[in-house]
Parts: sequence; structure tokens; C-alpha cells
Amino acid sequence: MESLEKKQYELDFTKIRESVRVFAPATVANMICGFDILGFAVDYPGDEVAMYRVEEPGVRIRTIVGDDGKLPLDADRNTVSACVKMLLAHLGIQDELGIEIELTKHMPIGSGLGSSSASTVAGLFAVNSLLGNPLSKEELMPFCVEGERLACGHGHADNVAPALMGGITLVRGYQPLDVIKLPVPDELYAGIVFPQVDVPTRDARQLIKEKVLLKDAVTQWGNIAGLIAGLYERDYALISRSMHDVLIEPTRAILIPEFYEMKRIALAAGALSFGISGSGPSVVAIARGKEVAEQAASFIQQHLTQCEIESLKYVSSVNVDGPKLLD
Amino acid sequence: MESLEKKQYELDFTKIRESVRVFAPATVANMICGFDILGFAVDYPGDEVAMYRVEEPGVRIRTIVGDDGKLPLDADRNTVSACVKMLLAHLGIQDELGIEIELTKHMPIGSGLGSSSASTVAGLFAVNSLLGNPLSKEELMPFCVEGERLACGHGHADNVAPALMGGITLVRGYQPLDVIKLPVPDELYAGIVFPQVDVPTRDARQLIKEKVLLKDAVTQWGNIAGLIAGLYERDYALISRSMHDVLIEPTRAILIPEFYEMKRIALAAGALSFGISGSGPSVVAIARGKEVAEQAASFIQQHLTQCEIESLKYVSSVNVDGPKLLD
Repeated sequence: MESLEKKQYELDFTKIRESVRVFAPATVANMICGFDILGFAVDYPGDEVAMYRVEEPGVRIRTIVGDDGKLPLDADRNTVSACVKMLLAHLGIQDELGIEIELTKHMPIGSGLGSSSASTVAGLFAVNSLLGNPLSKEELMPFCVEGERLACGHGHADNVAPALMGGITLVRGYQPLDVIKLPVPDELYAGIVFPQVDVPTRDARQLIKEKVLLKDAVTQWGNIAGLIAGLYERDYALISRSMHDVLIEPTRAILIPEFYEMKRIALAAGALSFGISGSGPSVVAIARGKEVAEQAASFIQQHLTQCEIESLKYVSSVNVDGPKLLD
Repeated sequence: MESLEKKQYELDFTKIRESVRVFAPATVANMICGFDILGFAVDYPGDEVAMYRVEEPGVRIRTIVGDDGKLPLDADRNTVSACVKMLLAHLGIQDELGIEIELTKHMPIGSGLGSSSASTVAGLFAVNSLLGNPLSKEELMPFCVEGERLACGHGHADNVAPALMGGITLVRGYQPLDVIKLPVPDELYAGIVFPQVDVPTRDARQLIKEKVLLKDAVTQWGNIAGLIAGLYERDYALISRSMHDVLIEPTRAILIPEFYEMKRIALAAGALSFGISGSGPSVVAIARGKEVAEQAASFIQQHLTQCEIESLKYVSSVNVDGPKLLD
């Protein structure tokens, strides 16, 4: 991978910290119309990684909290520790340093909110912080993409990019990796609802057809272009007109119970747009102002409750900072 | 058509002029990566319409200059006069007013530079000016799209939008028609070369496949999003990285002699990007600064001369004004 080429980083062993604690945010990939290229970070939920420097060399997982026993404790198989090992190896210090990790998941796995990306980014941001920040965020990005490849088989950046950079990100392309931060209109809020049904990312991807009609692709990229312009212009009406997914939603919505009724409810509540977060089953109402986002999400959750579907709800502005040190 | 709905316009017959003369610009549709949604206007070439109020009611073509006899003089079949008649009928004054038209084509027909659009826009802008501007440019737009439908069978707006509005335009969608003006970086220049070979728009469209690979569409809309961001950021490097067409160019380039050699020459001369203008056969080198655009176009033209292909060359900044009154 071109971007992972060997490079000299300034490492000062006297600057290595004893411990750090890091939060990295959940993310809404695709941002409704921008399949595989757009995404944004939210204030919560997110994952937390505590990292400790220890005497005995090697990287180990101490504990994982909040994963219902789903994630491996084996340091070579767990995404967080595997990413940390990859970075240490890249820096040529894998045999010198001892690191132990506590991972706390504050968000559901398989929700379409970039759960593995949040953990990957938290782990890599944490180890970089522990080492005194030898790498910039831009330099950390290719390692995050590699982490995503370890976690789900595809080196997509549409979740790790906003989780690491914060805000709204565009992944223009991969050869080389080209991530662009887009402007964030102040009043943009997300009302997220996670219906607790199981939709594995791999299945959601497999449903999507390999070929699409060119005329539908033109509609889609007209909307993508409109959304980018709308973000720069802070034009909420244009953002609303542009956030339509004619290509992916019709297929993926089949996997999500009550999707079109939730959409009706969100738009009736005044949301600018509504769609699937990542590969689902979480859905997101994009709104101007917190109140509308809150109402849309609440009404959706009420409807799901009536249908006897349990759900989680998150209302957040766009998180422009990305991962942060706690304490 | 929703946008052509009847509406009351303020018409003051005392304000109708005796004559007007209007220039409307050529346009580069697609802007390399934005098939069917992006386009920009240039300072020249373009078409000229002179319009005269006469006693005898009805719309007539007096003369057409520069078309090599290709365009019909019949007022119902000529696009310019047919558009003028459509607007007069819409205003309910088709039986009251007498108008005669002189059309001067300063640009080749079938060149991929929006020849019919320039004429359509010149005609509609002229009649609106003659009538004292009852319609805004935005209100004229749907009539221009109708004119394009008369001229080439498809109601596309990617040439008429920049020809009428000036600058760089995004046609986000058609239901309803949604045209957005994008920012124009000052130093953006186009070096256009028209190799004098015949590529009818209809044939160029028919070559394009109905279905495309989703992964290619994702690459394309990543580039489109990157270009829009690059225009807002005035980031010429991002503009350059983004202006690639992986979907349409591989097919249409077959119709254009020496296409890949012209591309090599343009990029070697320092152009930001190179591609097909509209449906071709004109090609365009996008450059930062007039000098690079001029060099790229000259080198391309020299190469075509060596290949015994005659060509025309135009070097222009982006025309931000659109049509203008002459005199």
C-alpha cells in the first residue's frame, strides 16, 4: 500500500506516556446519497480505549466491556490490538514496547454506525498519543483503512475517515487515498435510530447489484454534487433536495423493518432527509436544528415500539473534532 | 412541464424595443467528469442573434450566416425562431407581435461545443430583451431546455444552463429543473481544439452503454464530489486530481482521432486535465492560467496538422456572464 511506505518518524522514548484514554466517535457513512464516499461523525455514541505502557514487551487486550462477548481477546485477531501492532511494527518498535488495552464499547456492533471503525480509530489514536504523536492524523489514516480491512474484509474509508478526521469527509479516491474535509453547517443535526435487528454488513453489500443504470447513476451524482454545493453554501434547502439515494436504498431498505414508514414519519416531522446509516439497520434523519432531529427520532422510536421492535436512539450535531483524549 | 406553467408576466408594450443584438457563448458540457450535470461557458466562440420588431405579425428568419446552409429557414423548424414562437405563445402575444431574426453562427455545428444551445439561448435572451425583460434568467431556463429538446431530441440542460447563466453550472436534477451556479476560480482556462471530423451527438450518445459497473460509478461520483469541493476551495490540485472520466471517455474517445495522443500532449504541457467537450469531437485542456491553456491547445493543433487533420482552436477563461447585449 503506497501510503504505508516506510518513512522516518521522530520517536522520543522519553516522551512516551504511561497511559492514555481515548474516545472515538460513531459515524454515519454514505450520508444518504454518497455511497462509499461520504460520511460524518457524531458526538455520541462511540468507543473508548484505555492504553497502558507495561514492562513486558508485546500488545495484549486486558478487557473488553460492552461487546456481549462478541469480540476476540486474542491480540492478533482483535482489530484494535492488531492495528496497534501494525503501527508499532511500522515504526520498528514492536519488540521494545509493552502495551495493554482496555476496550469499552459504548455502541452496538453491527448497527451501521461504524462500530469497528470507532474502535480502530480509538486504538490507533491512542497508541499515537501514547507515543507522543509521531504521526499526524493524515498519516494515521492509511493505518485506519488497513484496520477496516482487518475488521470487515474491505479497506473502505467511509467510516474511518470521519471517525479520525471529524466532521463531514469525502473519500475522493483510493489510489492514492484522498480524503477531503467538507464544511459543516452549524445547524445540521442527526437523529439516529437503531432498530435492534441483525443486518451484517457483508449481507447488506451482497444485496447490491454489480451494475446500475447509467441514468440512475447520473441522478445519484447530480444529488451528490448538489449536496457538496449545499454544504459549502450552507443552503439547507439544497441539502434537502440533494439527499436522495436512488441506487442503494431501494435494495437495502428491504432488510430494515418499517423503513418506509420511518421515512414518512421523519419527513413529516420536518427532517431535511432520511435514509440508511452505512449498511444499516440504523436509520438517520438529517435535520436543521436539534429539536427537529430529536422529534423525528422520537416519533420513529415510538412507532417501532408499537411494532414491538426494540431500538436505541441518538441525537447529535456533527462532531467536528473526531477522536479525543479523555481525562 | 411543470416549470412552463402559465404565469402572469408584466408586459408593457410601450417598452418593447425596435431591435436587439445578442451574443450567447459556446459551452463545454460535462466538464470532463460530470456527465450530463456539469458544464461551463467560454468567452468565445458563440452565436449572434439580431432581432427586429416589424409590422407584420409572426416570427420569421431573415438570414442565417455561417451555417454552410445546414440550418432550416422555416420558422417552425429552425430552433431559434421556434423557441421565440414558444415564448411569445406562452406570453399570449403570438398573434400581436411581428419579429424577424438574423442568426450568425460564429461556431461550428456538431462540434461538441453546444452550438444549438448557444443559438437557442441567444434567441430567447434576445426576445426577452426585446420585450423589456419580462422573464428573469431563471424563468427563461425551462424554455431553453425545451429549445434543446426541439434541436436534438433530448431536453438536456448541461449546455443551455451554462450558456444562459454563465460560469460553471450544476444541473442537479430535472423534476423540477434545479440549476446551481458554482464558483469559478479566477485562473481557470480552457484550451479547446475542434478536430474537423464529424461526430453527431446522437451517435455519440448511442455508443454509451445503458448499464455501468457500480464500482466505476462510485469512482466517478467521488471525482465529481472532489471537483465541486475543489471549485469552492479554489484548490487547483484537487480540481486536477478529480477531473477524470472513467465511464464515458473510454467509449466516446474511440470516435475522436488521436484522442490519447492529444491527452498525453495536454498533460505534458501542464494542463490540470484533458477530456472530451460534450459529446465531442472537440477536446478541452483545463489549465491554471492562460499560458498553459494556450500552449496545450497549440501543441495539440500542431500534432493534428502533422496528422493532416484540420482543426480550430479556442483559448478562453470561464465566461461568468453568459449571454450579452451587443451595441
